[in-house]
Amino acid sequence: MQSELRILAVRGIAEVYPGDDLTEVLLSALREQGQGLESGDILVVTQKIVSKAEGRLVDPQTVEPSAFARQIAVTGRKDAQHQEVVLRESKRIVRMANGVLITETHHGFICANSGVDESNVAGEGMLCLLPEDPDGSAARLRTGIHAHTGIAPAVIISDTFGRPWREGQVNVAIGVAGIEPLQDYAGVDDPYGYTMHASLIAVADELAAAAELVMGKIDKVPVAIIRGYAYQPSETATAARLLRDPKFDLFR
Amino acid sequence: MQSELRILAVRGIAEVYPGDDLTEVLLSALREQGQGLESGDILVVTQKIVSKAEGRLVDPQTVEPSAFARQIAVTGRKDAQHQEVVLRESKRIVRMANGVLITETHHGFICANSGVDESNVAGEGMLCLLPEDPDGSAARLRTGIHAHTGIAPAVIISDTFGRPWREGQVNVAIGVAGIEPLQDYAGVDDPYGYTMHASLIAVADELAAAAELVMGKIDKVPVAIIRGYAYQPSETATAARLLRDPKFDLFR
Repeated sequence: MQSELRILAVRGIAEVYPGDDLTEVLLSALREQGQGLESGDILVVTQKIVSKAEGRLVDPQTVEPSAFARQIAVTGRKDAQHQEVVLRESKRIVRMANGVLITETHHGFICANSGVDESNVAGEGMLCLLPEDPDGSAARLRTGIHAHTGIAPAVIISDTFGRPWREGQVNVAIGVAGIEPLQDYAGVDDPYGYTMHASLIAVADELAAAAELVMGKIDKVPVAIIRGYAYQPSETATAARLLRDPKFDLFR
Repeated sequence: MQSELRILAVRGIAEVYPGDDLTEVLLSALREQGQGLESGDILVVTQKIVSKAEGRLVDPQTVEPSAFARQIAVTGRKDAQHQEVVLRESKRIVRMANGVLITETHHGFICANSGVDESNVAGEGMLCLLPEDPDGSAARLRTGIHAHTGIAPAVIISDTFGRPWREGQVNVAIGVAGIEPLQDYAGVDDPYGYTMHASLIAVADELAAAAELVMGKIDKVPVAIIRGYAYQPSETATAARLLRDPKFDLFR
């Protein structure tokens, strides 16, 4: 393991609009900040700017709510058109109570409201959806940065999810490129000779959580660089590795 | 928010035995490493060395398993005495299937096997329990360090927990001292003038997760210093703040 790890906020990222090239946006912010990228860097990028660049914005006024959306809007005291957008992003409702809607997204993430969010979105009342393919988004950013700088950082797309049992939300990884999201210690001897049989660490989630500490919610820092973490490189790993097989999940 | 945050591994911490003074152990490791503490530092300390120092070790051979412990040992193909120790640390079984036992501890944490763990424990077959009062453990360490150095760091006691739906474990906070574990953005305007109504961030869990990245499982780095994070100080906050009120929890 590393002796020291640094987490750097990337400031000066301007408002992102549909069609913007995130690679350009990011590299320009880094140039202005006088911050270069180094080999081995990990970029953690909040979902919100990825979704904006990819045009994953919906005006709920343009959406016709289904009967079910109207129903749950009444029960949960929410807006029916907003609920319809959430339902369209879901493949399954996991829990619905107390005005809270926990869904499984088409990607397989389980979170509140399918990750549909209205905060930090420019444009009155616009809703922001999760990227359609966050791993693809991460890979494109990685490839773009490599083409411009010769450095291919690991990229993690993050979002802020709630958890059962624990208050507060934490950042987790919803897309990865160039990095194995799980670190497997199974079968490795610990320093006492005991073979660990259940030590699989979700390092991509821990990296996303660490990055949130320099991002905040109200400071418009949508990107962080994590430097000094010797991650396990992978050209094929996806965030789907972080989804538990329903067969082994006791909380579906 | 910070522009840069650093996470420093504290190396050279020797094996900890029941009755050891953790303050002495930690300060001596820092001295050897030539590493001083600074005002505003956060110490993240793994539960394991806290439990060892506090003598929270049990030899399962000395424990008489109940009929129920014998039953679940058969079903889950586990050791009955080990299961008995787990049951004694539980106030409720949350799920029991596939050889997995998810319990609620006496503190209110929901995790596998009540946090009872056999890895990284010196002494063949000894089991390590969670500290009885992790907030108290954190507070004693904070007070001890303050007495010796004049600096009162925030202290987080961490453990590695699994999560529903997501593969892999992550570090979370099970005890805190000097730091408010939740950062509340409710009612704060985001940069677009939208008032965020559900943005409570579990920063203590994110700090614990970040620290894990320099700890690893097999490197005997049980303590990390996080420097440069402007946490919200609190002399009264406890990790109980991180436990969701059962009334609002949909996954009990």
